[in-house]
Amino acid sequence: MKIDGTPYRSIWVDGHDGWSVRIIDQTRLPWALEILRLAELADAAHAIRAMQVRGAPLIGATAAVGLCLALRADASDMAMERDAAILAATRPTAVNLHWAVARMLARLRPLPAALRVAAAYAEAQAIADEDVAMCQAIGQHGVGLIGDIAARTGQRVNVLTHCNAGWLATVDWGTALSPIYAAHEQGIDVHVWVDETRPRNQGAALTAYELGKHGIAHTVIVDNAGGHLMQHGMVDLVIVGADRVTREGDVANKIGTYLKALAAHDNGVPFWVALPSSTIDWSIADGIGEIPIEERAASEVALLTGRALDGTIATIRVMPPGSDAANPAFDVTPARLVSGLITERGRCAASEAGLRALFPDHAMQPAA
Amino acid sequence: MKIDGTPYRSIWVDGHDGWSVRIIDQTRLPWALEILRLAELADAAHAIRAMQVRGAPLIGATAAVGLCLALRADASDMAMERDAAILAATRPTAVNLHWAVARMLARLRPLPAALRVAAAYAEAQAIADEDVAMCQAIGQHGVGLIGDIAARTGQRVNVLTHCNAGWLATVDWGTALSPIYAAHEQGIDVHVWVDETRPRNQGAALTAYELGKHGIAHTVIVDNAGGHLMQHGMVDLVIVGADRVTREGDVANKIGTYLKALAAHDNGVPFWVALPSSTIDWSIADGIGEIPIEERAASEVALLTGRALDGTIATIRVMPPGSDAANPAFDVTPARLVSGLITERGRCAASEAGLRALFPDHAMQPAA
Repeated sequence: MKIDGTPYRSIWVDGHDGWSVRIIDQTRLPWALEILRLAELADAAHAIRAMQVRGAPLIGATAAVGLCLALRADASDMAMERDAAILAATRPTAVNLHWAVARMLARLRPLPAALRVAAAYAEAQAIADEDVAMCQAIGQHGVGLIGDIAARTGQRVNVLTHCNAGWLATVDWGTALSPIYAAHEQGIDVHVWVDETRPRNQGAALTAYELGKHGIAHTVIVDNAGGHLMQHGMVDLVIVGADRVTREGDVANKIGTYLKALAAHDNGVPFWVALPSSTIDWSIADGIGEIPIEERAASEVALLTGRALDGTIATIRVMPPGSDAANPAFDVTPARLVSGLITERGRCAASEAGLRALFPDHAMQPAA
Repeated sequence: MKIDGTPYRSIWVDGHDGWSVRIIDQTRLPWALEILRLAELADAAHAIRAMQVRGAPLIGATAAVGLCLALRADASDMAMERDAAILAATRPTAVNLHWAVARMLARLRPLPAALRVAAAYAEAQAIADEDVAMCQAIGQHGVGLIGDIAARTGQRVNVLTHCNAGWLATVDWGTALSPIYAAHEQGIDVHVWVDETRPRNQGAALTAYELGKHGIAHTVIVDNAGGHLMQHGMVDLVIVGADRVTREGDVANKIGTYLKALAAHDNGVPFWVALPSSTIDWSIADGIGEIPIEERAASEVALLTGRALDGTIATIRVMPPGSDAANPAFDVTPARLVSGLITERGRCAASEAGLRALFPDHAMQPAA
């Protein structure tokens, strides 16, 4: 997608030297667009650990190129296994990270050391390109939801989204935002209600940034506001991403997603979830009972970072000194509240039957 | 209620000089407990305008004592009418403000100027004392909800609240928090989930402060988290305040209340609304259709104030420069989602029948 007219991916190999890696430092967004250069393993590991890159697909792509950089220094079996382990340990809970490292190793282990660097770059590029194609396909399968509303009403379509499931979380296009970018490309008049998404403010900081820079109309709202907007017909459609989807269609996503799903259901607003099929966890059925929810640091609730009026980046505390905070990072939206899923293969109902129809090739547990 | 063991009201006449008025500067909470002295009309008007006092009952009480201070300077008819108008114009939408000023004038107009100051102080004291009695009664009528759960489960009772409807918003006790203070007095083990309440953070700043200082166990959560907690049985009861309640029981309250009501309903968690009967608007039935919702400044969403790590109070921007924000201040929770209302006369169903039974003396429009 574009930043002020210039097309970007969230990660790319430098066109001048042909080997170093460029990323956007997302910890500096939305205040500054700083392009970082990753030249060795340590740079890539740090970028993941310090959340200069975030979003499961982008983390996976960064780990893949991180291994390329490591192999340039030492492509021996021993070094490769050690460096792959270092990368895999940067964010231990990220599924895509482990998947990308494992895929790289599977490709590289059979090769002699001398051939590994070139093969690694090719494989890392394939991982990135496949992610882009998958996200773009999600956009193509989802854009009809927006187009249908535009055709029916003849008016601007208002889409509400939560958190950041945009191109900054993937390599390009994003998941939840991909249908919005596709609609924009088709000339559909679309406007996005951007949930702030406390406590980490990925909506206000990243979604607002990427939509604004690409030229898509949007308005930031606090997480409390969406229900009121839906009651008054100001939301035509909700699209969110997902961190994990069970085989029965329950959706784990950023904390607060469930509240928006309830409001959408109560007001007859379609509530769609966009996801690559790698997000589907075929091994579990009941999301609320079976998906463990990460409890993150209270400091994420207590402290907020932004730009002070003098232009410096400052962190402030927004709670009394003596008070404690709890910080569950995700919640589960039951399938009954989900209008449907948008995947790279098409749309389906948020149910085992829906998912089976779209992914008949997948080895599934028999239904209980 | 208490601050570190010392009992406070949110407004009181100074015991030493017997006429000046003391308030807590709520714009400095939770970072500093600063007691301000109001000595003349301008001080009282500024306190209301600058939101050093906030919460409808407290604003009314402040206007009443503001008129006392004004009368000390000039108790003539002309001055009294002029000064009353100045006070009434400080926050034009606050119903209690107009009510308190009108009540003071009704008491004072028949009196000769020489008797007005003493009568004004007596009337202002009565307004404050009646508010305290009303809030305390709400607590007594609501505490059984908490006590019943404690008796049934034998465990700590977890109450979730939104915004600040505590003693800082009234003269003492509060509305939604009054049953919690009453439970605490009865030795019931109660813990409060405090919704941060974006965008103005009244929960994180004021509710957490007053609960903490009184010694009540509480945990701050982002507004996104409550649904997840309810899904996992971590909330026994929700109690919120109200800005306006229709005769059919629809509840206008701080933005985001509706989302918590949906989650409570979806998870079988009782959802109660605490209010003085002055909050009931007998003239309207349908809250969503008939209650106009104030749209406040985008800057409330974009800017946040808190304590920087160096101890100074700082304001930061949390959105990209080019992005806009919308900021509806309230939403309406339909009566069907409300388990019941807690008033100074007792509890009732959130319905016209429920309200009629509790307030048979009230002149009501015939049902449509």
